[in-house]
Amino acid sequence: MLPRGRPRALGAAALLLLLLLIGFFLFGGDVECELGELGGERRGPGSFPCPLTPRVSADGRPRGAAAVDGDPSADRGGRNRSDCVPPRPPLPKCELLHVAIVCAGHNSSRDLVTLVKSVLFYRKNPLHFHLVTDAMARNILEMLFHTWMVPAVRVSFYDVEELKPQVSWIPNKHYSGLYGLMKLVLPAALPPELARVIVLDTDVTFASDIAELWALFAHFSDEQVIGLVENQSDWYLGNLWRNHRPWPALGRGFNTGVILLRLDRLRQAGWGQMWTLTATRELLTLPATSLADQDIFNAVIKEHPGLVQPLPCVWNVQLSDHTLAERCYSEASDLKVIHWNSPKKLRVKNKHVEYFRNLYLTFLEYDGNLLRRELFGCPSPPSAGAEQVQRALAQLDEEDACFEFRQQWLTVHRVHVTFLPHEPPPPQPHDVTLVAQLSMDRLQMLEALCRHWPGPMSLALYLTDAEAQQFLRFVEASAVLSARQNVAYHVVYREGPLYPVNRLRNVALAQALTPYVFLSDIDFLPAYSLYNDLRASIEQLKLGSERRAALVVPAFETLHYRFSFPSSKAEVLALLDSGSLYTFRYHEWPRGHAPTDYARWREAQTPYRVQWAADYEPYVVVPRDCPRYDPRFVGFGWNKVAHIMELDAQEYELLVLPEAFTIHLPHRPSLDISRFRSSPTYRDCLQAVKDEFHQDLSRRYGAAALKYLTALQQPRHPA
Amino acid sequence: MLPRGRPRALGAAALLLLLLLIGFFLFGGDVECELGELGGERRGPGSFPCPLTPRVSADGRPRGAAAVDGDPSADRGGRNRSDCVPPRPPLPKCELLHVAIVCAGHNSSRDLVTLVKSVLFYRKNPLHFHLVTDAMARNILEMLFHTWMVPAVRVSFYDVEELKPQVSWIPNKHYSGLYGLMKLVLPAALPPELARVIVLDTDVTFASDIAELWALFAHFSDEQVIGLVENQSDWYLGNLWRNHRPWPALGRGFNTGVILLRLDRLRQAGWGQMWTLTATRELLTLPATSLADQDIFNAVIKEHPGLVQPLPCVWNVQLSDHTLAERCYSEASDLKVIHWNSPKKLRVKNKHVEYFRNLYLTFLEYDGNLLRRELFGCPSPPSAGAEQVQRALAQLDEEDACFEFRQQWLTVHRVHVTFLPHEPPPPQPHDVTLVAQLSMDRLQMLEALCRHWPGPMSLALYLTDAEAQQFLRFVEASAVLSARQNVAYHVVYREGPLYPVNRLRNVALAQALTPYVFLSDIDFLPAYSLYNDLRASIEQLKLGSERRAALVVPAFETLHYRFSFPSSKAEVLALLDSGSLYTFRYHEWPRGHAPTDYARWREAQTPYRVQWAADYEPYVVVPRDCPRYDPRFVGFGWNKVAHIMELDAQEYELLVLPEAFTIHLPHRPSLDISRFRSSPTYRDCLQAVKDEFHQDLSRRYGAAALKYLTALQQPRHPA
Repeated sequence: MLPRGRPRALGAAALLLLLLLIGFFLFGGDVECELGELGGERRGPGSFPCPLTPRVSADGRPRGAAAVDGDPSADRGGRNRSDCVPPRPPLPKCELLHVAIVCAGHNSSRDLVTLVKSVLFYRKNPLHFHLVTDAMARNILEMLFHTWMVPAVRVSFYDVEELKPQVSWIPNKHYSGLYGLMKLVLPAALPPELARVIVLDTDVTFASDIAELWALFAHFSDEQVIGLVENQSDWYLGNLWRNHRPWPALGRGFNTGVILLRLDRLRQAGWGQMWTLTATRELLTLPATSLADQDIFNAVIKEHPGLVQPLPCVWNVQLSDHTLAERCYSEASDLKVIHWNSPKKLRVKNKHVEYFRNLYLTFLEYDGNLLRRELFGCPSPPSAGAEQVQRALAQLDEEDACFEFRQQWLTVHRVHVTFLPHEPPPPQPHDVTLVAQLSMDRLQMLEALCRHWPGPMSLALYLTDAEAQQFLRFVEASAVLSARQNVAYHVVYREGPLYPVNRLRNVALAQALTPYVFLSDIDFLPAYSLYNDLRASIEQLKLGSERRAALVVPAFETLHYRFSFPSSKAEVLALLDSGSLYTFRYHEWPRGHAPTDYARWREAQTPYRVQWAADYEPYVVVPRDCPRYDPRFVGFGWNKVAHIMELDAQEYELLVLPEAFTIHLPHRPSLDISRFRSSPTYRDCLQAVKDEFHQDLSRRYGAAALKYLTALQQPRHPA
Repeated sequence: MLPRGRPRALGAAALLLLLLLIGFFLFGGDVECELGELGGERRGPGSFPCPLTPRVSADGRPRGAAAVDGDPSADRGGRNRSDCVPPRPPLPKCELLHVAIVCAGHNSSRDLVTLVKSVLFYRKNPLHFHLVTDAMARNILEMLFHTWMVPAVRVSFYDVEELKPQVSWIPNKHYSGLYGLMKLVLPAALPPELARVIVLDTDVTFASDIAELWALFAHFSDEQVIGLVENQSDWYLGNLWRNHRPWPALGRGFNTGVILLRLDRLRQAGWGQMWTLTATRELLTLPATSLADQDIFNAVIKEHPGLVQPLPCVWNVQLSDHTLAERCYSEASDLKVIHWNSPKKLRVKNKHVEYFRNLYLTFLEYDGNLLRRELFGCPSPPSAGAEQVQRALAQLDEEDACFEFRQQWLTVHRVHVTFLPHEPPPPQPHDVTLVAQLSMDRLQMLEALCRHWPGPMSLALYLTDAEAQQFLRFVEASAVLSARQNVAYHVVYREGPLYPVNRLRNVALAQALTPYVFLSDIDFLPAYSLYNDLRASIEQLKLGSERRAALVVPAFETLHYRFSFPSSKAEVLALLDSGSLYTFRYHEWPRGHAPTDYARWREAQTPYRVQWAADYEPYVVVPRDCPRYDPRFVGFGWNKVAHIMELDAQEYELLVLPEAFTIHLPHRPSLDISRFRSSPTYRDCLQAVKDEFHQDLSRRYGAAALKYLTALQQPRHPA
């Protein structure tokens, strides 16, 4: 093959290279494009690959737009012309790339994460994300990136509220609302020293290295300031329907889902006045923007065609309805960026939609932990926590009996708080949030729990990225769950061999927004009246202000599957007597709740105080600022016991409520606990943790903590 | 930046291009490499990038080996030399690439799937896999690829048994056993018209487009026949320990985890005799091969250095212990292929192991369904089932009430049979396999089931790729499960909105290897004696030979969570009377088992015949060749009822066994069933399916099937 092929190859190469030289001297920076020409690539009528300035052709479209003609550099036809396209962007290795994204609300935050995953998957450069967010998105994304710990990734936040005034005067009909318009003010909003930035919509997905996109800045002529891909729909040609009057644009106009901005030049050119003037003038005759910023960008470009550097279509393959994108992707074998720019998003009709969905789902369900990859050969700042953790993990001795414990302790879990839309409860002095944690195998509890607890809840879910999507669909499919706005779901992404039960509790606890919290477990259903009763008790007992107390909610269990839930204490007592209800863990571990003194509870009319005793682990209501759970307790065993001990050490009164109760429903042991039961070494490691914990207690509480040590002396099987 | 930069860039480019021209005429095919030289890249002492033939340098390593010097084409340092590397392999778009892999046994089959996923993820060309397999691997992989339906992928199988004689005479100490040696005979084993092939070990992972590797064939000089990456360990330098005598090799020698073979030239050169001679001669002084084929390849190359084309190190980054690989990947920013060539595999010690693990886990847990991507612009054969399915899926009307049903029917599930090592049961005329299906939330049942059923089992598991790995770890962690060799686990990969219960049953049923099967459900625990009793009954009742019968195993249920399992019929009756045991679904759906006639069972000493009645769905023992389940019943409801109806239509006697029993344990409703309960339209769609099913029955069984229709008339809630 090769021998026969070579002579031809040589001739072609020689010609090519001479042309290349000419190309260089004639056309300056645009070698790649001119080569595309000279290489005689088949092209759609009336369009040329990225020229110096767009020329409007007969049919009114900007002949400049590489648009639906495929990405020259993506062409793998083995034609000589492609031999001198830079194999990868000619960037200094490890050059820092800047990306700006506008993001508001819970749903966009989830979209942004998927976009970022796709970027990180292919990237080989350090990245700096500039996120223009509202308070919600910032709260979510700050925590997410902080816990994600991706090496060589920096994130800065900009407050959307401060920018609103600059665009809020523009009437707009687009579904993106005001946020779409924010892209117009980025040159002013971003740091003045920032010269170039890639601007992305949250509904795009990368299928290639973003450095290749960044490299296209090199093709800007001196006057060009904005890089854009041509629109892949006929919207701006007008006449889609009677009286359809789009904003002015060069032919099909450009799509602003992916933008290259030369911020430095835009600032020099007085971009602010430029677009404001245009917008103001157009709005004299047009009622509002239909496509938000995109209408205004296009109107400005129509006036100043010299500003735009058209980008190859593959950098913004637009999957709107009636898209013309196929003309782009069927020619190029290599899609770079997919843009779900239909309000229908993934449900858009397109005969290749399954193909694109697969690319999207790849990153939607991709385990984000796997993106904590260092960039070999790029020095990262010393504070690159991720690398330290990974080194530490790599250094653990896998033969060590407690290897899994140590592994789990080293793990930093990615946390995505308020994964779904959530309305913070109105501030009330005695309000209580139910706090619990769960994994996939307990999702079925959520509906029942919602029926039993009308108040606010803060729930930590331990899920993989893929499970988080199943969870999302589960909530959407449930009338009960989707109706609730006061339940906050916080996703903690699975990592490590053991269930980090106390880390999960601490995440849910930290996100509770009411002054009090009910520290429960997911397998318990509280009395229907508990939410109201608790608020009343807190008020009556004047908690917080004068007294530091933990209200004990007596716990029961049913071993029966079919079970009609008692509506009153009287009914609970009846069920106890009939033997269809037991005090919690009556059979296996009575001492866990013995101090609650159920005999006294039968009779009690008013709250009564009880004393701590070894292994006591009641379900309690405490102020939100209570001590956190000790994260060293992973998997199962002793995790609540230690917390109650800490409360006692801090001299919380333990007050049992006379009317309150909560009931544990039966279930198979979870995978995690069955692993525990099967492993003997697990218990030894647990014992080691207990000892450490006690030493800490004595260190912190001195003599007062002695009783815990003595209590520990008597041997017993671990809770 | 650009304006200032350009003049320099131009000068450099001009120089570069002239050099390129010279390079072309002087050195023929090896432009890339020579440019690497002329571009003045820093290189390790004594080595040069892929020259025409390797030269042995002072330190005895092949100076030819690009080895640990980084991949020139991968260098992104923006130096001129990289500007003229083909951006992608200069292959005709859609060229078919050939890949050969040797694979034997259950575990290698799983490894191969991960390797193939990584190849498919980045590939843009049609692929033809040539798999040299033993019977087990073939059985697994044939089914897997058949159901995977990846567009533009062909698979051929070659029987390892036929090839063994050619290598079995070679004494070998490597852990890969005889299979490692198979690579030597590929030129003879593969079709004579096949000129070039990439040969891969199952323990490599791709991080780039395999076409880039294929493109390196273009750099072979006329006499070169084998492309290899230099070894990244000092093994072949010898003296690793006292009396360490490795096989002869050029310096560090080459690693055979990734090989480019010019089959055509090897055949011409009489490769067969060549390696046999060398091996025979070396074995006069050496006891055996230590590294299987690799020792022999290296010995041959040492004799004929002209045969080898050294490949850039990034195409085989070897993660053995004490690897020198870091010298490769720390320079190149772009790893192409990772090779887990330590017996420890992922547990190998390496300070960057977490990085490599992440790449590996990416594909281990990657949803293989997402790789069913068509190649745009590459015409695929009409038989590309996947594309048809995907088109059909895209054409479904999402507003249609039964959309999810239709979606589920169109879905073809990937099936990986005998996912874990399994020993087929010895042939016995009356043996019975327990057949059941489950998803992740029922894993906890497996240990108990193994205790109750010592016989063979065929279980279909409905899992995601990630869950399949959790399942693997679960079995490894369980003494009970890992002890069992007669339990076959068949993974059916999750896809579509509804639980394909009957497809799962059919997969498990089709894989049962005994003459009889017990069609059970995963939440049932059979009597400890059932396995023996059934085999006895089958023998006594002379099933198969004379009579066509279904043996009914009476079903019971406990609602109690803590439950001591009855060891005899007498105990069952006692528990029934004490109300701690019920006949199955006694409360919600008695008619499902009423025909079993429990009253009669109490008294029965011998098997008794019962008549079919509407909605009867007993658990039965039948010959393996019984009718399959109707896959149109997805999600929940009526799936067993239809099957029993079919048995009755085919005139199976229904014989209830007097001593047999099986007991259902309580559990929360699964996610899938709770979705069903929440959806009213679901029931309508189910009804539609029932009607279709009845029409088919009457079509197939005529008048005999009338009774089923009439039975259907009486309205009742769906099972």
